[in-house]
Amino acid sequence: MSLKPVIVVAGLGAGGGTGAASARAFAKEGYSVALIGRRADELKTLEDDLKGSGAEAASFAIPSYAHGDVASAFAQIHSRYPSNKYSIRAAVYNAGNGVWKPFLDVTPEDVQLVTQSNIEGSFAFSHHIIKAFKENSIDEVTGKRGVLIFTGATASIRGNVTTSAFAAGKFALRALSQSLAKEFGKQNIHVAHSIIDGVIVTPQTKARRNDQQWEQQQDVRLNPESIAASYIYLAKQDRSSWTWELDLRPAHEKW
Amino acid sequence: MSLKPVIVVAGLGAGGGTGAASARAFAKEGYSVALIGRRADELKTLEDDLKGSGAEAASFAIPSYAHGDVASAFAQIHSRYPSNKYSIRAAVYNAGNGVWKPFLDVTPEDVQLVTQSNIEGSFAFSHHIIKAFKENSIDEVTGKRGVLIFTGATASIRGNVTTSAFAAGKFALRALSQSLAKEFGKQNIHVAHSIIDGVIVTPQTKARRNDQQWEQQQDVRLNPESIAASYIYLAKQDRSSWTWELDLRPAHEKW
Amino acid sequence: MSLKPVIVVAGLGAGGGTGAASARAFAKEGYSVALIGRRADELKTLEDDLKGSGAEAASFAIPSYAHGDVASAFAQIHSRYPSNKYSIRAAVYNAGNGVWKPFLDVTPEDVQLVTQSNIEGSFAFSHHIIKAFKENSIDEVTGKRGVLIFTGATASIRGNVTTSAFAAGKFALRALSQSLAKEFGKQNIHVAHSIIDGVIVTPQTKARRNDQQWEQQQDVRLNPESIAASYIYLAKQDRSSWTWELDLRPAHEKW
Amino acid sequence: MSLKPVIVVAGLGAGGGTGAASARAFAKEGYSVALIGRRADELKTLEDDLKGSGAEAASFAIPSYAHGDVASAFAQIHSRYPSNKYSIRAAVYNAGNGVWKPFLDVTPEDVQLVTQSNIEGSFAFSHHIIKAFKENSIDEVTGKRGVLIFTGATASIRGNVTTSAFAAGKFALRALSQSLAKEFGKQNIHVAHSIIDGVIVTPQTKARRNDQQWEQQQDVRLNPESIAASYIYLAKQDRSSWTWELDLRPAHEKW
Repeated sequence: MSLKPVIVVAGLGAGGGTGAASARAFAKEGYSVALIGRRADELKTLEDDLKGSGAEAASFAIPSYAHGDVASAFAQIHSRYPSNKYSIRAAVYNAGNGVWKPFLDVTPEDVQLVTQSNIEGSFAFSHHIIKAFKENSIDEVTGKRGVLIFTGATASIRGNVTTSAFAAGKFALRALSQSLAKEFGKQNIHVAHSIIDGVIVTPQTKARRNDQQWEQQQDVRLNPESIAASYIYLAKQDRSSWTWELDLRPAHEKW
Repeated sequence: MSLKPVIVVAGLGAGGGTGAASARAFAKEGYSVALIGRRADELKTLEDDLKGSGAEAASFAIPSYAHGDVASAFAQIHSRYPSNKYSIRAAVYNAGNGVWKPFLDVTPEDVQLVTQSNIEGSFAFSHHIIKAFKENSIDEVTGKRGVLIFTGATASIRGNVTTSAFAAGKFALRALSQSLAKEFGKQNIHVAHSIIDGVIVTPQTKARRNDQQWEQQQDVRLNPESIAASYIYLAKQDRSSWTWELDLRPAHEKW
Repeated sequence: MSLKPVIVVAGLGAGGGTGAASARAFAKEGYSVALIGRRADELKTLEDDLKGSGAEAASFAIPSYAHGDVASAFAQIHSRYPSNKYSIRAAVYNAGNGVWKPFLDVTPEDVQLVTQSNIEGSFAFSHHIIKAFKENSIDEVTGKRGVLIFTGATASIRGNVTTSAFAAGKFALRALSQSLAKEFGKQNIHVAHSIIDGVIVTPQTKARRNDQQWEQQQDVRLNPESIAASYIYLAKQDRSSWTWELDLRPAHEKW
Repeated sequence: MSLKPVIVVAGLGAGGGTGAASARAFAKEGYSVALIGRRADELKTLEDDLKGSGAEAASFAIPSYAHGDVASAFAQIHSRYPSNKYSIRAAVYNAGNGVWKPFLDVTPEDVQLVTQSNIEGSFAFSHHIIKAFKENSIDEVTGKRGVLIFTGATASIRGNVTTSAFAAGKFALRALSQSLAKEFGKQNIHVAHSIIDGVIVTPQTKARRNDQQWEQQQDVRLNPESIAASYIYLAKQDRSSWTWELDLRPAHEKW
């Protein structure tokens, strides 16, 4: 009897962004969903939404991306999705606070927040995911024990004025993803990193911009669903041709 | 009445590699195929093979990737696939000779060959493709007038001992692809570049290695069909999230 | 009456490495020296050594690179080198613990240590240095208010098996240096980053290897004094041609 | 009896740029100078100028950077500076035409010009230089048989709108320099590459801009002499710490 595949998504923001779209896309592919995030209410709404569309879903709110908090989320995930019935097969790490400030305005708290969500949390998350993947058999179609995808940004490859803290976090996350890809590829664990080079349409960016034209002009901003489609594509790549890194940007983006 | 989409593939080698697999994959998606290469016999075999599987195909042998030769191939392509019935919607530039030699053994002829296939030919090919794409309407689903994909290699991003000439050609090709992506994205033309970081299973690499185990171990070499699947994925990306560059390597590749 | 230039060097290890060599090299150029590090005894030894060679020097031991500890070191530095007589004109951030372990062996404490020395400490250090530099006049010869140099490593640009934590820290440090270079170049503050791609001859690496031949073969390992010579060169670059990043490796290094 | 060191500089433009400044700087360090370029009159003027300042100099005008033309220049250089008295110890490849045009305006002749000066010529030049260096003893101070420096540009690492041809050439040159650095470092030949990220003050850029303020504001453009100072620095780096690549830009450059 085969085990049901589970995806773990960390970093849902207020819902409606890349994390939520990834959860929905993998749910449509037959995955049960585990949601990790800091906003309990929004997580619950997304969980209900996924259930409403027929998916199995559960949410795990954490107070922070400190390793202890991440560990306790995974303890609950393993309890909710026991290994005699489920197999964690995919993960998206989408957390990572952004801070945009002139350098001298960056506070120790900013540095701490960026560091915790991009580094401490990503190391803890990866630790639990890789350990879970190592228990899996190799999928016959894809040749994978599991796929772990990190969401990066322009700041993953370019430090800029006002992005000292954000870029520090995102560079670090990219380093982690590359190290993991190299170490665990040999064990048929696929680790990938996306560079999102543009603004994503989310409830927050819609509210901030309040610009119907921008929302509707598909060439100038990213749909979370389109990013999620790329994540599904990565998950399906067969063992002969895996991608570590790809960039994603709107057709009209200046870069 | 809608126009039938055409893909132009340049660089087929002896058939059986990335170019051939790309031609087959796009044919399955409903594209008519135009093949450009230097080996008339192998081109004809592939053309027949495509036709045998129900596709529309035509091959255009050229003596070299000199711009005049490329121009004459395109004149024939436009004649074979006239614009009242066809629309060139996709292109793969897969040409580009490799030379692996200690630097002092690299001859002026080596430099000339690498330069012609990677630079002169790619500029000429891109010129004709971009001009053709600009005549197209924007596809409603993908938001594209066309997609142009270049096949790169490890040598696209790293010069190494014995790759001075090959890397020079591949770095140049990558530069072209980035410039085109930036200039023509605004016109809804999608330009992408793949970095193939490993050995592809082709009739040539099979013959050279003569190692059944290598051929069959999916984790250690690339299938041309898997690369082609990524090219199809790139062709289908919608306008909100286009990839310029992705790497592709076997699961167990050391990098 | 002109102010005496001061260099602040953070990260001295056990003395005898890049930090110590930088302190000596800048001292020879007429700088007074402030040393920040975690080992009080070794700092004192280096301080005495500098004084013995005629330089002005003071050491400031800190328990950690937590921002509060770094802040208190700077309070002492400003007290020891008051701004009516001294001007902080150069800084080298050479701290940053390395951790080399398979990923699953990396502990939360490892992540914390790497993060603190490479990120929390570098942000705090840079904050105090940039604030000090902004008070300076522009030097007539170099066109600078000050120069801030970060020591990076191969792991600054490449995540690898066993370097997940180290590379995360070093990528982040590089991001910080690039952001600072872009933000403060306009204010005539020069920020640079070196990529040390090889093993440096230090008391520790000598002890670890215990290999006279390795020590004496100049082509296979880096002299701290040679790295320091590059830092002096960076400090002297005039305003028309500043380097953000350079790599440094032994002549025979494989890369 | 020791041999007199010779530097070979290719790519002098109209004189007054990086090539000329490099020739002067190495002459001051005691090198005899060989100048290769396409403009006989300007070469002669620079040759006379160098002689007037007490240096030994000779110029070798070539009709193009075709390998045969480069070969004949080197035949003359070896005749003028025979190996029983002279030793070619340094080389700067500063040639490489720029073309800035929308892609569809780039002609086959543009591609040919860029390719010849950046690739065919650089391969030929490097071939002769490396062969000459291999005859040299290892310098006791620097640990080098010789140093070969390539001048790159922003276009060496970034393809952009209007730089398709220029970037193709400059990416290729960078690839060559990296391959050579890796292959010949082991033989104590130092190969380096600079990325000039800004506008250099030359007679041409002065005439084009006709802006006294721009010329005099040292923070916004590069002095050829400052670039040359970096080349001298590279030439002097000892064998324990060689730089392959450094960037150079004005203090106030936006990047």
